[in-house]
Amino acid sequence: MLQTRHAMNTPSQSAFTRIALSGRLEDERVADSVLALATHLLARGLTVLVSDLVDRSHLPSAVEAVPESALADAADLMVAIGGDGTMLYAAQLTLGRRVPLLGINRGRLGFLADVSPTGMLERFDDVLAGRHETEQRTLLVASLERHGQVLESRHALNDVVLQKHDTGRMIEFETWIGGRYVNTHGGDGMVVATSTGSTAYALSCGGPIIHPELDAIVLAPICPHTLSDRPVVVSRNSNIVIRLIARPAARAQVTSDGLLLGDLDADTHLVIRAAPERIVLLHPPGHDYFRILRSKLHWGRSARNGDPELDAC
Amino acid sequence: MLQTRHAMNTPSQSAFTRIALSGRLEDERVADSVLALATHLLARGLTVLVSDLVDRSHLPSAVEAVPESALADAADLMVAIGGDGTMLYAAQLTLGRRVPLLGINRGRLGFLADVSPTGMLERFDDVLAGRHETEQRTLLVASLERHGQVLESRHALNDVVLQKHDTGRMIEFETWIGGRYVNTHGGDGMVVATSTGSTAYALSCGGPIIHPELDAIVLAPICPHTLSDRPVVVSRNSNIVIRLIARPAARAQVTSDGLLLGDLDADTHLVIRAAPERIVLLHPPGHDYFRILRSKLHWGRSARNGDPELDAC
Amino acid sequence: MLQTRHAMNTPSQSAFTRIALSGRLEDERVADSVLALATHLLARGLTVLVSDLVDRSHLPSAVEAVPESALADAADLMVAIGGDGTMLYAAQLTLGRRVPLLGINRGRLGFLADVSPTGMLERFDDVLAGRHETEQRTLLVASLERHGQVLESRHALNDVVLQKHDTGRMIEFETWIGGRYVNTHGGDGMVVATSTGSTAYALSCGGPIIHPELDAIVLAPICPHTLSDRPVVVSRNSNIVIRLIARPAARAQVTSDGLLLGDLDADTHLVIRAAPERIVLLHPPGHDYFRILRSKLHWGRSARNGDPELDAC
Amino acid sequence: MLQTRHAMNTPSQSAFTRIALSGRLEDERVADSVLALATHLLARGLTVLVSDLVDRSHLPSAVEAVPESALADAADLMVAIGGDGTMLYAAQLTLGRRVPLLGINRGRLGFLADVSPTGMLERFDDVLAGRHETEQRTLLVASLERHGQVLESRHALNDVVLQKHDTGRMIEFETWIGGRYVNTHGGDGMVVATSTGSTAYALSCGGPIIHPELDAIVLAPICPHTLSDRPVVVSRNSNIVIRLIARPAARAQVTSDGLLLGDLDADTHLVIRAAPERIVLLHPPGHDYFRILRSKLHWGRSARNGDPELDAC
Repeated sequence: MLQTRHAMNTPSQSAFTRIALSGRLEDERVADSVLALATHLLARGLTVLVSDLVDRSHLPSAVEAVPESALADAADLMVAIGGDGTMLYAAQLTLGRRVPLLGINRGRLGFLADVSPTGMLERFDDVLAGRHETEQRTLLVASLERHGQVLESRHALNDVVLQKHDTGRMIEFETWIGGRYVNTHGGDGMVVATSTGSTAYALSCGGPIIHPELDAIVLAPICPHTLSDRPVVVSRNSNIVIRLIARPAARAQVTSDGLLLGDLDADTHLVIRAAPERIVLLHPPGHDYFRILRSKLHWGRSARNGDPELDAC
Repeated sequence: MLQTRHAMNTPSQSAFTRIALSGRLEDERVADSVLALATHLLARGLTVLVSDLVDRSHLPSAVEAVPESALADAADLMVAIGGDGTMLYAAQLTLGRRVPLLGINRGRLGFLADVSPTGMLERFDDVLAGRHETEQRTLLVASLERHGQVLESRHALNDVVLQKHDTGRMIEFETWIGGRYVNTHGGDGMVVATSTGSTAYALSCGGPIIHPELDAIVLAPICPHTLSDRPVVVSRNSNIVIRLIARPAARAQVTSDGLLLGDLDADTHLVIRAAPERIVLLHPPGHDYFRILRSKLHWGRSARNGDPELDAC
Repeated sequence: MLQTRHAMNTPSQSAFTRIALSGRLEDERVADSVLALATHLLARGLTVLVSDLVDRSHLPSAVEAVPESALADAADLMVAIGGDGTMLYAAQLTLGRRVPLLGINRGRLGFLADVSPTGMLERFDDVLAGRHETEQRTLLVASLERHGQVLESRHALNDVVLQKHDTGRMIEFETWIGGRYVNTHGGDGMVVATSTGSTAYALSCGGPIIHPELDAIVLAPICPHTLSDRPVVVSRNSNIVIRLIARPAARAQVTSDGLLLGDLDADTHLVIRAAPERIVLLHPPGHDYFRILRSKLHWGRSARNGDPELDAC
Repeated sequence: MLQTRHAMNTPSQSAFTRIALSGRLEDERVADSVLALATHLLARGLTVLVSDLVDRSHLPSAVEAVPESALADAADLMVAIGGDGTMLYAAQLTLGRRVPLLGINRGRLGFLADVSPTGMLERFDDVLAGRHETEQRTLLVASLERHGQVLESRHALNDVVLQKHDTGRMIEFETWIGGRYVNTHGGDGMVVATSTGSTAYALSCGGPIIHPELDAIVLAPICPHTLSDRPVVVSRNSNIVIRLIARPAARAQVTSDGLLLGDLDADTHLVIRAAPERIVLLHPPGHDYFRILRSKLHWGRSARNGDPELDAC
């Protein structure tokens, strides 16, 4: 699943020529990185694109504005500058297009945005020269369906979350996988996450870390009433249906990558399956998933023979 | 991965003609089931085989004894009668052969032995008539290696377990996956389990339930010193190496499906990878993995709208 | 903390003469139990009281109606008939009074309502004859305070819960105990529970079971972002303050025994401390906390040498 | 439970005049601290004592040797220099005596040894001048009893641990508290810990953090077979009995603060109760339990508004 391409480092042979930059410029650190990166790319003779929703007053005038919905089509590389939230947003823009996505972190290393601002330009030259790894990540499609009709639908790179809403009471719901009844759950809800999302909310709910190379889906119950109601990991091909059990005060809402999809009631089913299209992530040379895990989870800090890399931090 | 074959239910067309029975006959319930099954199969004109290590004094005289090491080669169906431990034992006998394995439970439903004694003969006729599902399960190979030499090696259907040995102190060890350093762990040890074994010891260590259709391996730390040292699920292709860190009183042992493989010291590496060969399990019609999960984990007992099947139990 | 009184079983010497019954009569099983109990008590020459909010059309005419707020003052024994929710409601009614509380379950055994409908009248005669155990339970007082002013305040027998509200985002908040800073938490919220409440929502959040004889408070984070953010058990005397950290979309609400207390914002503190007054629970002879635990948590079901009492169920 | 005494800082009025130093002098950092501390105390005209088992060749000649068993009686302050293990050892020496215990850490802050080497002499002068907090900690007494006879007995400041021994199989055992049957457990064993020990091994087994001011005992099952077999917190007065259930290959051993107490078999009961005597710990001014927790558990590292003290580390 991981491939590395090597190429000459001459501008004329850049693997990418039209580069879209995406980020929340209101954040000063993001704005600084975008400015530095845009300047660097323009100096190399490349085209730099941003969404027309962005305030370009502090960007070089050669930076071109493109309607946000057309940004991914206009570019051959999408760069997200910010945190993992910015990556999730940029991922939505690239949906269904073949344009790869590269993440630059605003501060601390992220699971998705794995290029740090220090050394950013060198890392970027590596990528432009074709020195990078390519990785495909699964997206989920979450749909709210009533009597066979799709009411709402959205893609998720991390997770689809069913949660009790505006209530101190637990909700009850059934899960079905591949047409087979799995369980009736009582609790705060359910996280359905990709391997990518396994280190986000699902991890706080007791779910396992799933290596992104393994294309799987985890169902992690949120604060389940029954203590043996544990996370279940299933294959990418699993068709998941969640049905709320009607109770007088039961209200539940569904979010997809943190954005509201809609409310769930007893007549509406939540259907989750893997999207046919995938996200293509680029990583500069030296990308190491386990190193990011160690950094994010503070592993090795208490061991006496720790991780030399981390000890040097 | 699941296939169902349908065929006519006439003895002359039985899908299997030479059937090996394996079980601990010292257990009276097992002996009763073996006797009933052997009598039934012989009456259908089929050949019934048992290991020559078994006391045949209470079995029909037409039952044939075969050296245990040759049992799997002599049969075209291996039947394990007992609990999941008997299944693990029978699985070792079929290693590297193409003979499929069917499990009959002595009492309560098991994850592997999923035919109950009541209705056993009817279920068996279904299987003989070709009405069954076929499922492949991954085995791990665990090796103790010193300076490139393999000292000991054994297959595991459930799990390979590294554990502190004869000591009140925690052990420290490093994990490497695919040649990449993962983490340095302090604690009681590590369970490396297949999807099959995910519902055994690994589950008690905080690991997730992995559906057997997903071919994955889970590394679940046992009582880890660092609270963020959480289970990691990786793909079947992962080559896992565990190295003990030398401490004056550090002793650690490795078991494979509960049987001792050997001691681990600072010079000896534990290497775990998926075996190229797989176990073939047969299930009679109506096999339902989630139903077994619900039964074993007492799911749905506390929900108000429970599982009707279970409520009837 | 547990005392047993023994007395003669003659009606004239009943330990209690004015008995209030509390329950949701809309539930048929509750109505049946209330009717049977009222009839039994009236036949023994005792006074039976109910809230004037209750529909008395199916109750004996000798049952007296009392304004709900005066019910606890008018009675020398309060009986709650229903589930643990009914017990929580009745506990609120007895607040600050010395009247003891007895719980009769509508169906399955509860942690608080530990008298089952079968044998209810015999158990009740035991209690009237003074054959019972007395147990005191701590209540929490939760207050929302702004600039030293109390905005809202309510008692809780089980727990006070801070939770994110109407948002897919985690909230961040600080905890202080006894004036000392404890931690800054990111996650879904925090459960602050009494020993009584330790087997309710806090248990689903990873909290321990706290024996009611131990007068303690547990702070159990809900789906914490930091994996080492674990439940903390402190003494009854602990003064707990929780402060929300201001974020653009951060909304959080506070419930007390499942009822809304109010919203928490960056200017409002949640202050939780033990109430000076306690609830007095009566248990009929043979009350066994661990037996209830075993029943509620399905303990012993999978052990081969199980609990003989449970096996007989 | 916490008291602070203030006094004049003149040597002649030192609160303590005969000071025992305990530590593993083989560790160079420990030896350096012991030398510095002994020199400082002698210069102040105080008496310094060490065990006669210690190599005194690098210590000032005025340091007096005392038989180890008499060390606590000869001193009015016992100082442990090293890690928490050294504290546990020194605690055993002070058992049954009224001499208080002070811990100096060799490197990183410990839960028990909470004075760091930097600033050690100033902190010590505070203590000598009576500026310190006094805290009492409960000890457990673990006994192996057969037919009413005590075979072995030992005190534990942290925990008493029952564990499977030399086997890949789980053990089964019953717990009884105050003469009442609690549960039959299957798994790797059980940790019975004081509040002090709640942050040691019990925490890795899913137990809660118990504030040392709350005098409680936690029973935390180790990798329990039944997922609802959760930690139980009981009062200090609880008499705990654990009985192994006889199985052919069942072997189990009991350790007390990490030291072997003996093997448990079906005829031998493990009895655990709080010791009547307690350990007296001294803390220099500024001692903050929650600060140690934050440091040891890496709390606040991932929060955006972190702990300023820790951020400065």
